[in-house]
Amino acid sequence: MPRPFVFINSAMSADGKISSILQEQVRISGREDNARVDLLRAESDAVMVGVGTVLADDPGLRLKSKDLRMKRVDQGKPEYPLRVVADSLARTPPDANVLGPGCLLAVSQAAMQDRLEMLGKRCEIIICGEERVSLPQLMSHLFQRGVKRLMVEGGATLNWSMIECCLVDELYVYVGPMIIGGKEAPTLVDGIGYRCDFPKLKLLCAKEVDDGLLLKWSIRKP
Amino acid sequence: MPRPFVFINSAMSADGKISSILQEQVRISGREDNARVDLLRAESDAVMVGVGTVLADDPGLRLKSKDLRMKRVDQGKPEYPLRVVADSLARTPPDANVLGPGCLLAVSQAAMQDRLEMLGKRCEIIICGEERVSLPQLMSHLFQRGVKRLMVEGGATLNWSMIECCLVDELYVYVGPMIIGGKEAPTLVDGIGYRCDFPKLKLLCAKEVDDGLLLKWSIRKP
Repeated sequence: MPRPFVFINSAMSADGKISSILQEQVRISGREDNARVDLLRAESDAVMVGVGTVLADDPGLRLKSKDLRMKRVDQGKPEYPLRVVADSLARTPPDANVLGPGCLLAVSQAAMQDRLEMLGKRCEIIICGEERVSLPQLMSHLFQRGVKRLMVEGGATLNWSMIECCLVDELYVYVGPMIIGGKEAPTLVDGIGYRCDFPKLKLLCAKEVDDGLLLKWSIRKP
Repeated sequence: MPRPFVFINSAMSADGKISSILQEQVRISGREDNARVDLLRAESDAVMVGVGTVLADDPGLRLKSKDLRMKRVDQGKPEYPLRVVADSLARTPPDANVLGPGCLLAVSQAAMQDRLEMLGKRCEIIICGEERVSLPQLMSHLFQRGVKRLMVEGGATLNWSMIECCLVDELYVYVGPMIIGGKEAPTLVDGIGYRCDFPKLKLLCAKEVDDGLLLKWSIRKP
């Protein structure tokens, strides 16, 4: 089934954590990296997060740079990329920053009707999957509506689910100059984890950015 | 208190895991990196692991290269660096590969006498700390007996304890081209984890090795 080109973009500490044990947002990257992330968003047709990230960080997922927004408009694109939330049970708070025009909430059939009615006033909702959002179905849906390039911005559980479903092409990881530590702290890829047949990566580039390192990997097809 | 120069050396996946959820050893690095690790051992006065690593991987911690061993002897050093195990409760199995002449088991006062008697036949034992091994005391002891350069080879819990006690100068991390995933998989630095005041690192070098990347960081003094 055709799907968008998908890449994960994330910052992690030198020990692989994307947040502390408090699950609070940790400032891992600096100014140069923030500009890079804004550009990656601008060049994508859609940006996706999991509901865990919405609950923990409440990101807006919009472009910060006015120039980048204007450039998109000049290219005949919407000012902002589509904002997608994978949220099986429709747990997104109704005042979440990500909501509003240009936001698509992907839920499963297990989501409660009253949550859908409330959230439906603030965003578009699609139902795909029974108990959990079917990510392959969601990718197919996004492709059909014109999303050719999708940026996934975490968190740890969505990253795992996308990789496990073989839906990720590339992985951009900013490794920040810090240690976070903690057995319970979220890492770049959590979930159940592999026991064997670990997905192999190919290093595309490594570049120093803001006292840390930006690594670009492609995921080899199994 | 004077202590050795201490560096941690470890291989991790691109998502920060040093092993899978099965806690089994995963082959993350390749031939070139193995030779690098052997050289790092040869250049150290002692090599240390935590008992968790002994129980999970049963490492020998000896030098593989005969040339490197001969070179040490030519320099008037013992053929192998001292092998140190931090093992608060003396849980090291009596048939562990790490035991034998040139092995030092650091235990706490909480270790059972019968375990110490059994293990004392196969290695030297020092008691430092009440409930747990006091790592600062152990470092001081090692320095006094001539260990000027100590290589710590994990695992996740010892790495955390050493960093938390501000006993680590540098961190050498081979980032392998693979994803391991798993919320429960051991990472480079586990333990309790920091909530704030995350230790800052300085990137000393980044170099491609065996399809992955070798990163050297120094830990900035707080």
